[in-house]
Amino acid sequence: MSAGNYCLEYSHMAKQPKFKITPIGGLGEIGKNMTLFELGGDGFLIDCGIMFPANDMHGVDYIIPDFRWLEEREDIRLHGVCFTHGHEDHIGAVTHLVKAFPELPLYATPLTAGLLQVKLKNARLLKTTDLNIFEAGDTIQIGPFKLESFHVCHSIPDCVGYGVNTPYGVVVVTGDYKFDNTPVHGRKTDYARLAGFAQRGVALLLADSTNSDKTGWTQSEAVIGGALDRVFRQAKGRIMVATFASLMSRVQQVVNAARNHKRKVCITGYTMSEYAKIARKLGYLNVADDMLISIGQAQNMPAHKVVFMVTGSQGEPSAVLGKLASGRHRQLDVRENDTIILSSHPIPGNEEMVYRTINRLIQRGADVIYDPIESVHVSGHACQEEMRLMLNLTQPKHLIPVHGEIRHLHLHAKLAVDNGMRAENVTVIENGATVELDGRGVKVGERQPGGYVFVDGSGVGDVGRAVIRDREILAKDGFVLVSVNVDQRSGKLLDEPRIVSRGFVYLREAEDFLEQIRENIATTVNRSRRNLNGNRHTLVEENLSKLIYSETKRRPMIFSIVNEM
Amino acid sequence: MSAGNYCLEYSHMAKQPKFKITPIGGLGEIGKNMTLFELGGDGFLIDCGIMFPANDMHGVDYIIPDFRWLEEREDIRLHGVCFTHGHEDHIGAVTHLVKAFPELPLYATPLTAGLLQVKLKNARLLKTTDLNIFEAGDTIQIGPFKLESFHVCHSIPDCVGYGVNTPYGVVVVTGDYKFDNTPVHGRKTDYARLAGFAQRGVALLLADSTNSDKTGWTQSEAVIGGALDRVFRQAKGRIMVATFASLMSRVQQVVNAARNHKRKVCITGYTMSEYAKIARKLGYLNVADDMLISIGQAQNMPAHKVVFMVTGSQGEPSAVLGKLASGRHRQLDVRENDTIILSSHPIPGNEEMVYRTINRLIQRGADVIYDPIESVHVSGHACQEEMRLMLNLTQPKHLIPVHGEIRHLHLHAKLAVDNGMRAENVTVIENGATVELDGRGVKVGERQPGGYVFVDGSGVGDVGRAVIRDREILAKDGFVLVSVNVDQRSGKLLDEPRIVSRGFVYLREAEDFLEQIRENIATTVNRSRRNLNGNRHTLVEENLSKLIYSETKRRPMIFSIVNEM
Repeated sequence: MSAGNYCLEYSHMAKQPKFKITPIGGLGEIGKNMTLFELGGDGFLIDCGIMFPANDMHGVDYIIPDFRWLEEREDIRLHGVCFTHGHEDHIGAVTHLVKAFPELPLYATPLTAGLLQVKLKNARLLKTTDLNIFEAGDTIQIGPFKLESFHVCHSIPDCVGYGVNTPYGVVVVTGDYKFDNTPVHGRKTDYARLAGFAQRGVALLLADSTNSDKTGWTQSEAVIGGALDRVFRQAKGRIMVATFASLMSRVQQVVNAARNHKRKVCITGYTMSEYAKIARKLGYLNVADDMLISIGQAQNMPAHKVVFMVTGSQGEPSAVLGKLASGRHRQLDVRENDTIILSSHPIPGNEEMVYRTINRLIQRGADVIYDPIESVHVSGHACQEEMRLMLNLTQPKHLIPVHGEIRHLHLHAKLAVDNGMRAENVTVIENGATVELDGRGVKVGERQPGGYVFVDGSGVGDVGRAVIRDREILAKDGFVLVSVNVDQRSGKLLDEPRIVSRGFVYLREAEDFLEQIRENIATTVNRSRRNLNGNRHTLVEENLSKLIYSETKRRPMIFSIVNEM
Repeated sequence: MSAGNYCLEYSHMAKQPKFKITPIGGLGEIGKNMTLFELGGDGFLIDCGIMFPANDMHGVDYIIPDFRWLEEREDIRLHGVCFTHGHEDHIGAVTHLVKAFPELPLYATPLTAGLLQVKLKNARLLKTTDLNIFEAGDTIQIGPFKLESFHVCHSIPDCVGYGVNTPYGVVVVTGDYKFDNTPVHGRKTDYARLAGFAQRGVALLLADSTNSDKTGWTQSEAVIGGALDRVFRQAKGRIMVATFASLMSRVQQVVNAARNHKRKVCITGYTMSEYAKIARKLGYLNVADDMLISIGQAQNMPAHKVVFMVTGSQGEPSAVLGKLASGRHRQLDVRENDTIILSSHPIPGNEEMVYRTINRLIQRGADVIYDPIESVHVSGHACQEEMRLMLNLTQPKHLIPVHGEIRHLHLHAKLAVDNGMRAENVTVIENGATVELDGRGVKVGERQPGGYVFVDGSGVGDVGRAVIRDREILAKDGFVLVSVNVDQRSGKLLDEPRIVSRGFVYLREAEDFLEQIRENIATTVNRSRRNLNGNRHTLVEENLSKLIYSETKRRPMIFSIVNEM
């Protein structure tokens, strides 16, 4: 195994420090990717993304990697953060990172940098942030670290992976990738560079596991062109295409189809419009000025002359498609003869909302096209054969499967062993586990926190597990709160108990039950001993719980306020 | 079109009444199947199932069809309810139906009747209910109606569809079906009977649409036998197979595999054990006494000698698999080298919970096998080619697609038209729409309510949309309630406001914010005019809302109780 050409300042040291890798997010989950790399007292990061909440993370807007421990680690000098591509799960938490480390330089390819700028600008952080732009294929120096970027295909242009030079060989980080041989933007995954790393000796590969349960080879984005063409040819009225705001290759394909079928394109929604603007400016979206129209212009054109690009392909009620489905969009509506294309797959957990949206659009008269009805979407991630190809191209000594749920990481590990790797050289770890690489190999070292930081409204991290658990109980059975005024001397009720309840039963229509509750409280209070002090309210809550459970088999949260006066 | 042989009492009437069909549930949704059939003043029902709640139907245990309007319809004499098969979405609401119509006779095949008996017995309704058992293929007379039952394949034995004789031809109801040519229990879908109906003239077909977005032909249950054999051969330790409690064909296949690989079977969980007991008694589950062991016996046997059948394949936290995944099962645990097979597909909406369960089981060291890793599950519903075959066998004049979301119903309709049916003879309707059949054809008539009745705890229908909406808000941002004592004469605060809050922020750790809240309340109360009466509490709530939103960008429910004394 070659020692690599860089980090020479360490190579002559008697006892070389270990090269350490700590995934802060992105392992055992889909989202919030972020990894720390360290050698001696120096370090850098790759990516800083967000994750969307599970259905039972009530009220949470999004989740960021837990890098709070890193803020406290004074033994690491962070030299920068490099981004692989512009998707939310890789760049979405950038403003949180910049707030914590205002001096930290950012490194990204032009399109990724353009999308980062939008985020930094919206958070008023653009002027104070050191954002460095490089081209895919460039070698970048980050403090003592030399990173060789290489182009990979995914579902957004300008994606890179990194070859990180260490005293123990190259560490290859794939980022999200697939081997698309006919990509929309022409540039292929950099086979030559990957093979080159192998010649120098890849000590460790960190590779995308997202599709490790899918056999074969992910279809090329090129198939979508054909599918769009078929759908466009048959569409009689307007066409609406829903996809992720950042999926610029898809926007390009829709523009191409529109041009071939003599339709104009209207890009709706703030985020998608902003992203398209940047992609056009940087040359990643090839569309003539006269192809683009506003919603107002689109409304005045014949139905068969327009295509709308909309967001909301995951069934989000607040995005354009969600509003169209429920008739809440201020300017647009869905009409008989509209053709609506969902160019996306539901992210696990979103299926219910996606299919509900589709059903509602059909109820409004639209013809809705989605996979499997037509191949209007392909994955941006490598399937099993591509994962084998990545292993065969880079010939890594060690593998750490990244990006994916636990099941994906384990399947990737199994695939690597089936492909000839030694089982002891394949390490499945979870967020927060530090992996140490040295001349002898890979070892799992100490553990850092690798948890969730919930962002809810303007609060970051103030909503924790306890609050979520309370929300879960409230969501299930609601609450009942009673307030009673008690005569301090006699210990008797002074007036009618007041009852506030939500999410339990509709008490206005349950007058008998309400009366039972009032009687239960009155009995408890009037029968209780005089000098109960704090215990009277516990007694009220206990007896009320029993009554409510025996009558309804439900367990709302129960509170009482006892005013002794 | 032949007039059929039955219902002769109507055939001589000068103006024959229309044959009416009203889906009460099961259209535009997966679940709670129930349909009313009427001629003149007579009627009968087919099926009465439940539906599982969507992720945003907080706290709802299950949903039953809304047949409350039927209880009030004194113009219909109901003669019975016939069941197609024993799955929850077709029989699950039977006790609710029997409570509403205690005299109503039930008709079912032996296994379905066995499963109905369990439900009726648990609800103490068995003795008073008139349950009639018939064999698949039998013709049953229900009041003036003659129904010819015919066997269909699905994923539970003893399934039937019905040919209903009307003055206007046969109305064929498929129930859930597929054309399995090598079913586990040997009996095929009754091709001959279906073709026979065609010869007499099928006026209308009501056919299963569940898989209308899937091309080709659903795989036979026979493929599962092969997959189980492969997995059993490789398994080193214990095997656990998770599936639906009522999937008796699957239990049979696991028993067969266990026998071939010299393992004993332990059926865990109350419901699955009960169902297996009945299926054995009735001859639908072929298993020798010495093949079955208890959990206690299983614990004392070598790991490679046992198979556990468990429930929880949909990721339900309270079922056996969910408890194993989180280490909460009292008798069983998951060990290194266990092989766990999920013989099921996630029902849409359950993906997140299913994959979370799988990830946790893998974390505990188990090898988890699920589709697509192995073909350990096949659908019980017809795919597109089978749907075409059903149309070609029965040659219906009219079609109403049933069983499926809106998107499935529309795709089924499209398929029928592509297959040669006239578009005007294919009618897509939703729950509550009454379809009228007479000599001239099919017409959509008046509309009945077709909504949801939520069952939560022991309450049926007392939780409505308003309560669910409140639960949604509570789930998102929680609530804050303040109680203040105010001097009636001066209008000033008498003591510190008391604050109760859950699901908002963890107030114990937000002392500064709590202080802000207290000050906000004090300022509002002390500055308000003396004789505000009821308005003081509105003012407190308004000002507090503003403070909380500006500080947190959240909108918890806010309540105040003002004691003027």
